[in-house]
Formats: sequence, C-alpha cells, structure tokens
Amino acid sequence: MNPTTRRLVPALLGFAFVVSFLQAAVAQSDPLPSWNEGATKKSITDFVARVTTPGGADFVPPAERIATFDNDGTLWCEQPVYFQVAFAFDRLKAVAEQKPELRSRQPFKAALDKDMQALAASGEKGLLQILAATHTGMTVEEFHKTVLDWTASARHPRFNRPYTELVYQPMLELLAYMRANGFKTFIVSGGGIEFMRPWAGKVYGIPPEQVVGSSGVTTFEAGPDGKPVLMKLAKVEFVDDGPGKPVGINRFIGRRPVFAFGNSDGDRQMLEWTAAGAGARFMGIVHHTDAEREYAYDRKSRIGRLDKALDEGTKRGWTFADMKRDWKKVFSFQ
Amino acid sequence: MNPTTRRLVPALLGFAFVVSFLQAAVAQSDPLPSWNEGATKKSITDFVARVTTPGGADFVPPAERIATFDNDGTLWCEQPVYFQVAFAFDRLKAVAEQKPELRSRQPFKAALDKDMQALAASGEKGLLQILAATHTGMTVEEFHKTVLDWTASARHPRFNRPYTELVYQPMLELLAYMRANGFKTFIVSGGGIEFMRPWAGKVYGIPPEQVVGSSGVTTFEAGPDGKPVLMKLAKVEFVDDGPGKPVGINRFIGRRPVFAFGNSDGDRQMLEWTAAGAGARFMGIVHHTDAEREYAYDRKSRIGRLDKALDEGTKRGWTFADMKRDWKKVFSFQ
Repeated sequence: MNPTTRRLVPALLGFAFVVSFLQAAVAQSDPLPSWNEGATKKSITDFVARVTTPGGADFVPPAERIATFDNDGTLWCEQPVYFQVAFAFDRLKAVAEQKPELRSRQPFKAALDKDMQALAASGEKGLLQILAATHTGMTVEEFHKTVLDWTASARHPRFNRPYTELVYQPMLELLAYMRANGFKTFIVSGGGIEFMRPWAGKVYGIPPEQVVGSSGVTTFEAGPDGKPVLMKLAKVEFVDDGPGKPVGINRFIGRRPVFAFGNSDGDRQMLEWTAAGAGARFMGIVHHTDAEREYAYDRKSRIGRLDKALDEGTKRGWTFADMKRDWKKVFSFQ
Repeated sequence: MNPTTRRLVPALLGFAFVVSFLQAAVAQSDPLPSWNEGATKKSITDFVARVTTPGGADFVPPAERIATFDNDGTLWCEQPVYFQVAFAFDRLKAVAEQKPELRSRQPFKAALDKDMQALAASGEKGLLQILAATHTGMTVEEFHKTVLDWTASARHPRFNRPYTELVYQPMLELLAYMRANGFKTFIVSGGGIEFMRPWAGKVYGIPPEQVVGSSGVTTFEAGPDGKPVLMKLAKVEFVDDGPGKPVGINRFIGRRPVFAFGNSDGDRQMLEWTAAGAGARFMGIVHHTDAEREYAYDRKSRIGRLDKALDEGTKRGWTFADMKRDWKKVFSFQ
C-alpha cells in the first residue's frame, strides 16, 4: 500500500460510514414507515411538501393547515358493528341492572337476550331507543366515565383486543406526520362527540376541542348537591354525517380543510367541500380491501358503505389508501 | 481621588446602571401594563402563578388550561347598541339596494328611515326579521366578506373609530398573558359565531376554531357553478347565551374552563359552570363604571345587564375588574 492509498482507505471507509449513517438516518426518519412505497404514499408526501414549502405556488400558511379525519373505518375499525353500537349493547346490561323493568320491554329484552330477530324487527327506532337508554339521562361527566370504563374493559370479538387498539397504525403515523408539518388535526365523525372525546387524546393525540361529531341536546341544571350539571337528554341535536359533515366543519372549525380523509359515502360531502376550496387540496379515502388482516367491504356493505364516493373519487383523482396494497401493517400489534 | 475610589466609581456607576437596567426590564416585562396595581390585578397574577407552578397543589397541566371570554362588553364595547346590531342596520341599506321592495315593508322601512317609534313597535320579532334579512340567504363565504367590509368601513358613533378598535387594551393584554402561560383562549359569546370569526384572529389572536357563539342553520347544497356551498338559512340553531354558554362550552370545547371572564347576567351560568369544577378556578367580571372613558351601566341596563351576576359574584368572591379603578387605559388610542 503506497502512502496515498494508506491515506485514502480510511477516508473512503469514513465516506462509506457517513453514507450508511445518512441512509440509516433517512430510513429512521421516514415519517410513514407503515406505508408501502408507491403512488399513495408519494401523493401524501408530495402534497405536504407542496403546501409547506415557503414561497412555493401552493404554500399554505400554518394557521390555515386544517386536516380533518373521519373516525369509524378511517382511523379505527368499524366492523362487525360500529364500536359505539357495541358500547351501547354492553352498556345496556349495566343499565338493566339499575332498571330491571327494561328486561321485559322491547327492544331492550331482545338486545339483552341477543334475540337478533326481535331486535331486527324493532328497526332503527329500536336502535335509537337503545342509544337513548345508554347515552342519556345522566350528566356529561357520568357518561364520560362509562365510556372510559368500557374502553378499559371491552374486547373486540374477532381480535380479542381493547377497541382502542384497533386503530390503524398507518393512520396514526399520518396524524403525527401532518402535525409535524404544522397541520391542526381534527376528527369529523358521524359518531357521538362525547363517545370519542374521552379517549381521542390518548389514542390519537387529538384534544377534545378538535373532535367534531354527532350530538344530543344537553341542558344546564342544578345537580343534587346544588352544583350545576349538564344533563344529556334523549333528543338528537346534530347528525355529523353526509351533508352534515361540511356543516359541522363550518360550525366547529370555521375554516375549510386543506386535507381530508374518509372511507365511506358518509364522507363524500366532506371531501367535496374540501375539494371545492381554492388552492391545493388533498382528498383521501381508506379502501377496505384486506379481509385477512382486517375486513374487505365497499359497495354492498351495510356498515361503512363506499359506493358513490368510490365512483366520484376515482373520477376526480382522489387518493385511495388501498389497505392490502398500501399498508405494511394495519394494527400495531400485527 | 485615591486609587481605590478611582476604581470604585466606575464600578458603582456600573452597578447603578445594572440596577436601573434591571428595573426597566422588570417594568417592561409587566405582562399587564394597562392594569393598575391592586387586588384585581393581583388576583389574576396570583391565580396564574398557582395553576402554572409545577408540583404546586393547584397545578393544572397545560392541556387543561382552558380560558373562556365573553365578547360583547368583556373584550370589546357593547354600547350604545351591540355592534352586531349596528352591523345589521348598516347592512340593511346595502340589502335594500338589491331588494328595493324592502323599503316599503316593516320593520325594514322603519329601520331604513330611522323611525325609532315604528321600529320599537315591531319588537323582538322585527329585530329578528332584520337579522334574518342581513345575515342569511347567502353563503358563509359571502357573509364573511360583508363582515370584513363593514369592520373596515363602519365607525362607532361616539368614538368615531372602527368598531374593531373599541377593544379593551387591558383585556388584550390579559388574553396574551393567559396564552403566554399555556392557556388556550376561547371566545364564548352570545354574538353570532360567523360575525366574530372573520376578525377575531387579527384583533384578539383567537383563531376561528376557538370562537364559540350563537348560530343559524346552514345547509350544504350545489352552488350556481355546480361547486358545493354552505347556505345560511333564516332559522336559529343555537343561542350561546345564559344557560346556553355552558352547553356551548361543552359542545365546542369539551372541557370545563379553569378561567372565565364575562360582564353580564348572560355570563352567569358560564361562571357558575367554571366555579363548579374541582381545583382552582378563576371567575372574573368586567364592571362598566367609567362613563368618561367608556360607559357606566349595570343593574338597569337594557344592554349587558349586570344584576344577578353582580350579587352572585360579590357573594362568592369572584373578581371584579372595575373599569374606572382597575384599568389605566380602556382603549389603546386613549
């Protein structure tokens, strides 16, 4: 080895070390590690780069970076039934212990006996009665506690995990990635606002004031000790679904989203409202294509039906996150 | 001068310089310079110190630091009429140019002719008709623009300033002080949510998603160019006043305030709801006692009446910001 080589070898080794170090750093710093490389991931990262590059044509000031996410089927699983329905049925058992008279009355008897035929016969009206019996007639604080008790104890029938573990790991990464890029992340869900808020902070990093959802009427009154309370009444106030989503976004957020993600026809109007804004916009749809790791359903599903929005999104070039194709893992425990 | 003195003089001069510099720095760093020293200012700064001292008995984690402020009469002036009413009357002239048929119909004729007797005869129903004619039948974007046009052009009859300059300088400092101490500041007002949002960011540093107010129904529909729009309908949806304030806080924010400031009986339930929480709480009331620099009114006022809340606040030891006693200046231009 001549003197020049002798000097060059450590330099080259050093260079190789630096290169591999940089590669590792880049790999480690991939903010979306559970997303497979491909057009979907690229459409997300390209969009974020465009709207966050100062001086760029599509730059969006940080205050305007509003990202809205549906919850059921977009951030967490919604099969075999919406988790809030599972909560209502579990909760009904506890309510019946306090009010035994419910055991002999429909639709409660059917729900408690798991008599699916009688339950189906009670229809939507029956479901609303069960929701009323389990979600109202208590203070907002009492309801908050029943939700947390349930998320701590209930298990999903197929995965045998707490429901709050059935959140999509790629979407958790996406939420964090958007926030790291100056976006304020909101949930905009057809689910109950007071059902989501107790755990959305811990699970999604989204505080209560950034959760938009359906709600019942509450009323301010004197509690038993004279202290005022907010009572939940058996009266629907606002349904944050379908055309209600842009209405809810306008009411609660007061700005149009720059970025919106949904998974069903209930999200169509939110995506249309987002798309109709001036400047760069991102519209994303989770497509449930993975019966093995999660569920596969779209046009014919009773829950989370994706039909009109599948056509419209395809026609208009919205981004589809195809669960089977685009996600390395679905849940963190897999 | 002996050598020791010769060395001492510059040292002493230096010391004096450092002392005066430190005094200036302390004076400059007073976060509430427009508040006179005294019990009111001390009750605010003592409270903030208690809830922000890590390890202290009253420590409140940053995420829970919610501060809510009424708007009319608390953050900006509300005399001689609520500014939104002044907006509605000014706006009516522009509407009548588009719809000349209004000129011959009551209560519009009375309002346009400034016929106060005929206007008074039309009562609350007449006022609601004027609000409907000036606030609805357009998209949320169109309404946003009319509000900004008005704040840019209209002048207060007494102060001859834009209405958005009639904000209380001590309260602007208080908003900034609360935010500097990790509080998230919200407006919770009986005023229209879409009337406040267009300018609240610039004037108060409060983004649209932190403005809670009264609202009308909006509906999602196809616009003239096929793009979807949100239309404002002539139907009241939610009145964020009195018992509606804790309801609005629960709906929009989802947490109980730690700190709340109002000025009238319309804020009483918000203050009661704040007070009823566990741990340290601050309840403040602006008392309008200064006819010279602003206005003096309380128990008998038709606008911003402070009667029941004056008694309750006195009895329960809430903090009163007495405008004449506690504020060095009321408006920044004074």
